[in-house]
Amino acid sequence: MKYSRLIVAAIIAAFVLTACSSTNSGNSSKKAKYVFYFIGDGVSLAQLSLTEAYLAQLNKKPGMQQLNQSKLNAHGWFYNYAENRFITGSAAAGTALSTGHKTSINTIGKSADRSQNLKSISYKAKEAGMKVGIISTVSIDHATPAAFYANADKRNQYYVIGKQVFTSGFDLFAGGGFKYPKGRKDTLPDLYETESDISIIRENKEFLEANQNKLPILFAHQRLHSDGAMPFAIDMNEGDLTLEQIVGKSIELLDNPNGFFMMVEGGKIDWACHANDAATMIKGMIDFDNAIGKAIQFAANHPDETLIVVLGDHETGGLSLGNETLHYKTKFDLLQYQTMSHEALVEAFRPILENNSNFTKAMDFINKNLGLGGPVELNEKDKLKLKNAWKATSNHNNEVELLYGSVQQFLFTALQMLNEKAGVGWTTEAHTGLPVVVHAQGVNEGCFEGIMDNTDVPKRIEKAMGI
Amino acid sequence: MKYSRLIVAAIIAAFVLTACSSTNSGNSSKKAKYVFYFIGDGVSLAQLSLTEAYLAQLNKKPGMQQLNQSKLNAHGWFYNYAENRFITGSAAAGTALSTGHKTSINTIGKSADRSQNLKSISYKAKEAGMKVGIISTVSIDHATPAAFYANADKRNQYYVIGKQVFTSGFDLFAGGGFKYPKGRKDTLPDLYETESDISIIRENKEFLEANQNKLPILFAHQRLHSDGAMPFAIDMNEGDLTLEQIVGKSIELLDNPNGFFMMVEGGKIDWACHANDAATMIKGMIDFDNAIGKAIQFAANHPDETLIVVLGDHETGGLSLGNETLHYKTKFDLLQYQTMSHEALVEAFRPILENNSNFTKAMDFINKNLGLGGPVELNEKDKLKLKNAWKATSNHNNEVELLYGSVQQFLFTALQMLNEKAGVGWTTEAHTGLPVVVHAQGVNEGCFEGIMDNTDVPKRIEKAMGI
Repeated sequence: MKYSRLIVAAIIAAFVLTACSSTNSGNSSKKAKYVFYFIGDGVSLAQLSLTEAYLAQLNKKPGMQQLNQSKLNAHGWFYNYAENRFITGSAAAGTALSTGHKTSINTIGKSADRSQNLKSISYKAKEAGMKVGIISTVSIDHATPAAFYANADKRNQYYVIGKQVFTSGFDLFAGGGFKYPKGRKDTLPDLYETESDISIIRENKEFLEANQNKLPILFAHQRLHSDGAMPFAIDMNEGDLTLEQIVGKSIELLDNPNGFFMMVEGGKIDWACHANDAATMIKGMIDFDNAIGKAIQFAANHPDETLIVVLGDHETGGLSLGNETLHYKTKFDLLQYQTMSHEALVEAFRPILENNSNFTKAMDFINKNLGLGGPVELNEKDKLKLKNAWKATSNHNNEVELLYGSVQQFLFTALQMLNEKAGVGWTTEAHTGLPVVVHAQGVNEGCFEGIMDNTDVPKRIEKAMGI
Repeated sequence: MKYSRLIVAAIIAAFVLTACSSTNSGNSSKKAKYVFYFIGDGVSLAQLSLTEAYLAQLNKKPGMQQLNQSKLNAHGWFYNYAENRFITGSAAAGTALSTGHKTSINTIGKSADRSQNLKSISYKAKEAGMKVGIISTVSIDHATPAAFYANADKRNQYYVIGKQVFTSGFDLFAGGGFKYPKGRKDTLPDLYETESDISIIRENKEFLEANQNKLPILFAHQRLHSDGAMPFAIDMNEGDLTLEQIVGKSIELLDNPNGFFMMVEGGKIDWACHANDAATMIKGMIDFDNAIGKAIQFAANHPDETLIVVLGDHETGGLSLGNETLHYKTKFDLLQYQTMSHEALVEAFRPILENNSNFTKAMDFINKNLGLGGPVELNEKDKLKLKNAWKATSNHNNEVELLYGSVQQFLFTALQMLNEKAGVGWTTEAHTGLPVVVHAQGVNEGCFEGIMDNTDVPKRIEKAMGI
């Protein structure tokens, strides 16, 4: 009886959910001519809060040191379940956020049964005369950016997706490159050599010096990983471009009297969460948030014509700001001692293994790069745990795959130990079904307050754009 | 350099945080004459969402089946750190929510150094001529309700706190009783025998039949645990009162032309989360939410004079909607097979141990009461794990404390197994530092949108009340 009452109430609520009342929608007579759509992949309330609490603890302040996204005017959260699974993935979530339709897991810009193409908000923006830019820190053919320009049965059809960069008619693609520029077997025509009107830029300096005459532009960051993604923010070197720099330059390239629509993905935040690597997640969040700062600066000069929306697509990792080891304590500032991402740690550790180095050298490595045994104190139990992990690691054979696997065992034990000692908790290396948070400022900002569904987001942006 | 910019921004944001602009504050010309202040102890976004996802999966619907609190008009979240610890406790959190001041851990209604008493919003409501009710499912001298009527150096001064029920001048206390009615050593005058104008009611029927002439009333639920708390919602028997019934009756008792202020705590949700017991948490959330339904019914008849605020005080358990075992799957509906709380399981299991029953009987018990080996399938690894836990349990000696401890080992292994197989994740048995969510409807509802601090909450309610 209790449940039947709840069902009736849920049906009534469905109407409320889809409505975006004009009374709380901000500057509702204005149209959003400049739209920033920031997607933090894998980000919900815990990712945001841990970053803010880390900054506060690092700077010896109480509570939270708010990021730009927390300082926007409007805040809410939304459901993100996929058509055929409660815990969504980036393809289905990206499609919901780009087209306003639920779809099935791994599907890009198509209906759940893959029989029909769905139209992304970015194509609608283009048709309305706006310039369109798609920016991501992961490869440009990855699920989230793909959902904004491509239609594909499966997210892993990278080449099929990549080709659609050239047929999209969009003005700018920037950040990561192609995951398989010559296809999965390296046998197809190189996408970087595609003949089109698109200027393909692969040097950072050339991108920073480009002007609007060069549009349309495809800019793939100079230093890319083999999977076509940019380096993690924590691994940035001199000469690498931050997301802030890329967004800043993109605004300059796209700014025009007819306006622009820009999707910016902080894609590697999700990757850090998959690895339960809090320090790398935090640096990714800060990089992403600095890029939002660029949009806020732009909006200050166009307050009545700009809409900034910042959100996650799903939560990754089951992250929490507390764990059983530290109980009611937190020492998030200990994460400062991590010098590089989990991926870079594996690479940097390889020579130690290959030289048959001993446990002392391995411990020196994690002291230097994770602070373990240095500022992050280790007890006897910790040392034993690391010793056991090291035994498994050093008993490797020479086969690369096994080597890689056993390297991980020692390093991931160490990484997990740092997370534990900092007071960070994780429940999974996968996504979770937690709703994600959304922040907005500008035209119709009030439409992003309260509770909504991921399919509502592009509809509300379109309403703000008047399309 | 990045950080110094963030610090400046954080200072600017501090102003924004404390402001509650009149443009988004709803019916701002009206005053809230009827105020419902619902506190779900231990509740943040995951507790709410898991309950909603459980109901949806139970009823074979996609996504979430929204509770009353999600259907209110305004939603936000707030920070809850204590004056001297990032992860707060119920005393410091309750004091912030009742007085608008941060305080130190374990302090009730006093400044962080315990030198000064802080004034609760409920006393301000009383001075303004409203009737005041304090309702909780845990003992009425527990930290959260205590923060609304008492001042005490430490939350565990239960007798000192309990005495203040009689000096408060409030109109109604209902739900749990006193934790130590005769003090910790059973040597002090029985608080239930206190001479005062308060009608002390300890029978459910008498409470349900009481009328306003009986006020002030202290109602302690008929069936109480030895700690003075009501039973968990999942353990309710025929004749026990739900929180919905208590709130419904309390509205009837407090309704008067000068209005009322009612604090209602769903206190045992937190206790379920401390035990990482998802099914018990969910039933507690539903019980709490049904009580909110009563307030919504009342508000429908007084839309311009009512304010309903629903919130958590802190998150407990590091709960997440996903875990490593099930990866991208969830089977939350499996939680339906749990018949009683972790506490009641321990009690019900005792005869099996005392009769030296065998492993088969123990497995029958968890089949019947947790569904394990029945609708919740067990593999060989699970059975081995249970067998090992049983060995530890059955090798008990007769000392009660040890018995209790070893019972827990088998049952908690089983309980954890059900949680794992349902796709629920927990990172701690303590609280976490995650912000908590707030929902509101009625006068000045817009003041509860966006991001705030726990100290802002009572200030915004007072603003709505015009006091």
